[in-house]
Amino acid sequence: MENEKIDFLKTYLSLYIGHQEIVEHLDDPDSPYVVLDIRNAPAAIKKDQIKGARAIAAKDLTAQLATLPKDKTYVVYDWTAGTTLGKTALLILLSNGYQAFELASALEGWKGMHLPIEPVAAD
Amino acid sequence: MENEKIDFLKTYLSLYIGHQEIVEHLDDPDSPYVVLDIRNAPAAIKKDQIKGARAIAAKDLTAQLATLPKDKTYVVYDWTAGTTLGKTALLILLSNGYQAFELASALEGWKGMHLPIEPVAAD
Amino acid sequence: MENEKIDFLKTYLSLYIGHQEIVEHLDDPDSPYVVLDIRNAPAAIKKDQIKGARAIAAKDLTAQLATLPKDKTYVVYDWTAGTTLGKTALLILLSNGYQAFELASALEGWKGMHLPIEPVAAD
Repeated sequence: MENEKIDFLKTYLSLYIGHQEIVEHLDDPDSPYVVLDIRNAPAAIKKDQIKGARAIAAKDLTAQLATLPKDKTYVVYDWTAGTTLGKTALLILLSNGYQAFELASALEGWKGMHLPIEPVAAD
Repeated sequence: MENEKIDFLKTYLSLYIGHQEIVEHLDDPDSPYVVLDIRNAPAAIKKDQIKGARAIAAKDLTAQLATLPKDKTYVVYDWTAGTTLGKTALLILLSNGYQAFELASALEGWKGMHLPIEPVAAD
Repeated sequence: MENEKIDFLKTYLSLYIGHQEIVEHLDDPDSPYVVLDIRNAPAAIKKDQIKGARAIAAKDLTAQLATLPKDKTYVVYDWTAGTTLGKTALLILLSNGYQAFELASALEGWKGMHLPIEPVAAD
């Protein structure tokens, strides 16, 4: 049972990337990361997002895949870690051959640590 | 490793059902779904619940199984997605041959989206 | 698929321990449990912790393993259930042969149930 727990934890943790790694590349024009805001919500509800994020709603992600270069690593986030939408988006990306992670703690955690955000433009 | 991640995500996501699917059947007398409020709390603490939910505390679920028809699909929820109680209830249901899911984002997410709730009667 | 779900849920739930089990041993000098506060935060940010917890930040856990007796069962917690830090700490402990669990619902859930906390001393 201990080995099953260890394997489970390794796979679980391999889905996530921490905020620190993202913050370090936030103003780097050659960043390996593209942060994807996958919230299914209009700009008026979202109000702000992680600085430099690209907004592609999870419901539109499959249709938008052709616009995502394969040489980047994608980091998806939803409102909170308690939703399943980030994992839905992550599954789409990984199943289509992309390097991708879910942002640990989601937008809620990012804001809780007072990391850089920016307003979102109206739809 | 990518295949392990994909398999993990598929199984994880297969445990959940989204609020939209439940909302669509909320006032349908022939709904395939029975929403189960599995919170281990008295009515005075719970105060309200998802509209039309049936309250069976997780701690009482095994004893109450005989009252649950097998031709329905059960959707369990706890206060938040951060507890393990929903998954405990889900395991009981699946292990006993029921079709069942956990409600993604739990009661907290349902309320956050201003979906229909109702007061709970005193115990 | 149902068996995969059941196996997944069993492994997932085996990672956690509930607050009730911990509360029952809170003032027991022979408690089998050592509660580890693994938050990566200074005392001034943490302010309080679960009563009787030992603070070892997740980032320091590997270096501190030699100070942890193997005859205890370790219960780790972070701020909320939405972070991955508890599982990172749990993986370190299990991989090094310790008995360990993550506290279900984390510190947020413990406080939400008004269970005993104590102030943390300045660093």
